[in-house]
Amino acid sequence: MDAAEFRKRGKEMVDYVADYLEKIDKRQVFPDVEPGYLRPLIPDCAPQDPESFEDVFKDIEKIIMPGVTHWHSPYFFAYFPAASSFPALLADMLCGGIGCVGFSWAASPACTELETVMLDWLGKMINLPEEFLAGKDGQGGGVIQGSASEATLISLLAARTKTIRRVQSENPELTEAEIMGRLVAYASDQAHSSVERAALIGGVKIKNVSSDDKFTVCGSALKKVLDEDKASGLIPFFFCATLGTTPCCSFDRLLELGPICNKENIWMHIDAAYAGSAFICPEFRHLLNGVEFADSFNFNPHKWLLVNFDCSAMWVKKRSDLIGAFKLEPLYLQHHHQERFRSLKLWFVLRMYGVTGLQEHIRKHVRLSHQFEHLVLQDERFEICAEVVLGLVCFRLKGSNELNKALLKSINEAKKIHLVPCYLREKFVLRFAVCSRTVESTHVKFAWQHISQLATDLLQTWEHDDHQQ
Amino acid sequence: MDAAEFRKRGKEMVDYVADYLEKIDKRQVFPDVEPGYLRPLIPDCAPQDPESFEDVFKDIEKIIMPGVTHWHSPYFFAYFPAASSFPALLADMLCGGIGCVGFSWAASPACTELETVMLDWLGKMINLPEEFLAGKDGQGGGVIQGSASEATLISLLAARTKTIRRVQSENPELTEAEIMGRLVAYASDQAHSSVERAALIGGVKIKNVSSDDKFTVCGSALKKVLDEDKASGLIPFFFCATLGTTPCCSFDRLLELGPICNKENIWMHIDAAYAGSAFICPEFRHLLNGVEFADSFNFNPHKWLLVNFDCSAMWVKKRSDLIGAFKLEPLYLQHHHQERFRSLKLWFVLRMYGVTGLQEHIRKHVRLSHQFEHLVLQDERFEICAEVVLGLVCFRLKGSNELNKALLKSINEAKKIHLVPCYLREKFVLRFAVCSRTVESTHVKFAWQHISQLATDLLQTWEHDDHQQ
Repeated sequence: MDAAEFRKRGKEMVDYVADYLEKIDKRQVFPDVEPGYLRPLIPDCAPQDPESFEDVFKDIEKIIMPGVTHWHSPYFFAYFPAASSFPALLADMLCGGIGCVGFSWAASPACTELETVMLDWLGKMINLPEEFLAGKDGQGGGVIQGSASEATLISLLAARTKTIRRVQSENPELTEAEIMGRLVAYASDQAHSSVERAALIGGVKIKNVSSDDKFTVCGSALKKVLDEDKASGLIPFFFCATLGTTPCCSFDRLLELGPICNKENIWMHIDAAYAGSAFICPEFRHLLNGVEFADSFNFNPHKWLLVNFDCSAMWVKKRSDLIGAFKLEPLYLQHHHQERFRSLKLWFVLRMYGVTGLQEHIRKHVRLSHQFEHLVLQDERFEICAEVVLGLVCFRLKGSNELNKALLKSINEAKKIHLVPCYLREKFVLRFAVCSRTVESTHVKFAWQHISQLATDLLQTWEHDDHQQ
Repeated sequence: MDAAEFRKRGKEMVDYVADYLEKIDKRQVFPDVEPGYLRPLIPDCAPQDPESFEDVFKDIEKIIMPGVTHWHSPYFFAYFPAASSFPALLADMLCGGIGCVGFSWAASPACTELETVMLDWLGKMINLPEEFLAGKDGQGGGVIQGSASEATLISLLAARTKTIRRVQSENPELTEAEIMGRLVAYASDQAHSSVERAALIGGVKIKNVSSDDKFTVCGSALKKVLDEDKASGLIPFFFCATLGTTPCCSFDRLLELGPICNKENIWMHIDAAYAGSAFICPEFRHLLNGVEFADSFNFNPHKWLLVNFDCSAMWVKKRSDLIGAFKLEPLYLQHHHQERFRSLKLWFVLRMYGVTGLQEHIRKHVRLSHQFEHLVLQDERFEICAEVVLGLVCFRLKGSNELNKALLKSINEAKKIHLVPCYLREKFVLRFAVCSRTVESTHVKFAWQHISQLATDLLQTWEHDDHQQ
C-alpha cells in the first residue's frame, strides 16, 4: 500500500469510525459470542501473498464487530469509563504518522518536551501544589504512563529504593535482602488489586488497612497497623491512598493520612485513577485536599477526560527519587521504556474542549449519576449502598446476594445495557457507572426502567421459588 | 467536535500524514532545536474556552515539527528501526475508534481472541516450536507487550516466583527474603540495560556473562560464572540470552546455553527485540536454533516487521508460570494491565503484506547493510568492527576514539543523516542501522559518500592538530 492508496483507504476508515461512533447506540452493547468464537473464523496461519484492503475491511464487520463489547455505547454502564473523543482520535493519527520513539530527548525533542508542558497544564487545571510541576526548573514534574497500575508500581519501587538507602545508612550492618524482608506497603482494603500486584513485583509485603463504614481509610486505622508492625520489627515504607475506589468511589482521608506518612518516613502515593479528572471542577477539588503531603499522585485522563487510552498522568515531587530508582536520564523525567508521542492527545483535547468544555463533560456525568440515584431511591425495593459523589452509583435490591446475582444475570443476559458488580463488605452490589461521552438523561431513564422491569419479573418468579433466603 | 466535523478533519489529517510520509526525505532528519525550545512557544496553561481545529492544526508545523527527529526518513540510520506502514496506521485508526479496553475476555472478546490467534500466526511464521503456541488448547501462547523491556521483566518475575517456590519446597527453613537475597540473574555483557533494570525492579542480583571476541556468549562462559556462584551459595535462576544485541547485533549461542539452563533449573528468556523479525526468512531462521530450550521468547514486530509501535510479541511455553507470578485470569494469557486492541495492527499488516511482502522488506534491509559494508571495506581508512549479519553495520575510522567521536560529531552536526554510536569493548564505534521502510540503495550510497567526505575533511584538520593520539 502506497501513500496514494492510504489517502483513499484512510478516508474510508475515517468514515467507518465516524459511522461506528455515530450509530453505536444501534448496536447491542454486549456481544453474543462464546469464548473461542474467533479462531474458527480465520485461517490457521498468515497468508503467503498480500490480500487486498477490501478483503481485510469486510472482515471487520464479519469477524471483529460480533465480538466487541461496545465501551462507547450510551448503554454501557460497566467498569469505569474509557475516554474517547474526536480530537484525541485526530491526535492519535498524527502520533502514528510521526511514529517517533521518545526514549530520550534527542530521539524526539518535541515528544519529550510537549509531555512535560502538558503535564504542567494538567497539574494546574487540578490545582496541584507547585512542587509537583516541572515549571522551568522545578524539582517535580509529570510524566505519562500507560496505566494507574504502572504509576503505582513505579512509585512503590522508588519508595523501596529510597527506604533501603535510608535504613542502610542508619544501620550499616543490615544487608539489602534483610531490609527488603522487613519492608511493608499499605493500602485500603478497598484499593485496586494493582497495589497488591506492585508489592508482589517489588518483592515486599503488603497489608490492608481497614476502611470504615463509608469505605474510607482514616488516620487512626493506618496508625493502628503501623504501630503494630513497627513493634514487631517491620519497616513501613509505602502507603497508597485511593481517591475514588473501584468498587464504590470512596475517598481516603488524605488530611489525616498525609501527616502520619510524612512523620513516619512513609512514601504516600495517591491513586485517583478515575476520580482525578473531576478535580478540574472547583466543586470537587476539596476531595484532593491533602495532596500536599503526598510524594506522588496519579490519575487517568484516559478514563474520564476525553483522552483516548493510553494516557495515565503521574506527578512526583522529586524527580530525583525516580531517577535514583531506575537509573534514568537525569535531564528529563523519563519513562522506564520507550513510548509514543502520547502528549499530542492531551494537547488536542485540552485545546479543543477548553477547561470549560471538559468541566461540562464531568458535570454531565455527575448529574446523570444523581439522576439514577434518585430513581433508585424512589423505588422501595432497592437501596443505595454507598454515597454517590461522582459518576458511580452502587445499588442493590433489598434482599440476598443470590437475588442480586440473579438480577445482574438477567440484566446482562438481556444485553440492552451492560453493568458489572462488586462486593461491598460481603454484599453483592450492582455498579452503575456513567461512562459514554454521548450518554444522556434518556439513556439513564431507559436503563432504570429496564432494570426496574427485570426486577419485577425476577421478584415474581423468585417468590414462587425456594431461592429466597 | 461532532462526527460530521471529524469526517472533515480526519480526512485532512489522513492527507497530512500521507504528505508527511511521502515527502519526509525533504525534511532535515535531525532537528535544530535546543533543549527547552518548546515551553516558550506555547501558553502557560490550558485555554478556558475551546480553540478551533485550525488553530491546533497550524501549530503542528509551527511548534511540533521543528522538534521532531524524523524516524522514518530514509536518511535516518540511528538506533534500530521503528516500524511504520500504512496498513498499521489504518488498523490503529480502527483501534482508536473501537476504543475498547481488553483487560478480560468479557471486556472485549474480539480483542483478547484476535491477539492469541495473531501470536500463533506470528509464531508459525518464525517456525517457533509448537509448545510456544496456544493452538486450541496448548499450554503455551503469545501475548502482545509494550516493549522488550516489559517482556524481560515479566519473564524475570515469573522465574523468580517459580524458583522461590521450588527452593522453599526443598528447604522449608528458608524464608522468602532469604531466598530472594541469594537469587542471581545473568545476561551477556552486551545485553540491553533493560535486563539490569528488570533485576533492579525484581530486587535480585544480576551478573554479566563475558562475551567472546565476536560479542557472543558461549556455554563455557555461562558455566564458569554459574559454578563460581553456586559454590558461594547463590541461586542462579534466570538467564536472558540476546539474539541481535543492541551495540552490534551479535547472537548468543543458544544451542550451548539452552541445555545448561535446562539442567540447572534456570529460566532461559530470549530477547530478540530487533533480530526476531528476520526469522521469517528461512535463510536467517538458523539463528533461532536452540529456542526449544527456552522458557520464554520475545521480539518486536514494532521494530522491523512494519507494525507501528507498540507491538512487542512474547511467547511462553507455560502460561501457568505467568499466571502463578501475577495472579492473572487463568482463562487467557493476560497482560498485567489494561490494553488497547493492538492485535488489529498485526492482522492488517500480516494480511496486506503477506509473508512474502514482509520477507522482501527484511531482505532489502539486509542487502542495503551489506552494500554499506562493502563501501566501507573499499576504503582503507575504515574498518568493520563486527560481523554484519542483518541490517546493522558497525564501523569506524582506523584511529583513536577521539577521532571517531569527532567524525560522528561532524556527521550529526551536518544533519544530512543521523547515526548513533556504541562502544565495543573500549572502542568507540559508529552504528549504521538500516531503518526506514522507504530507504533505497541511493540513500545508502549518499550516506557513505557524505561520511567519506566528512572523514576526508576531518583527517585533514586532524593531522595539523595535536588531537591525534
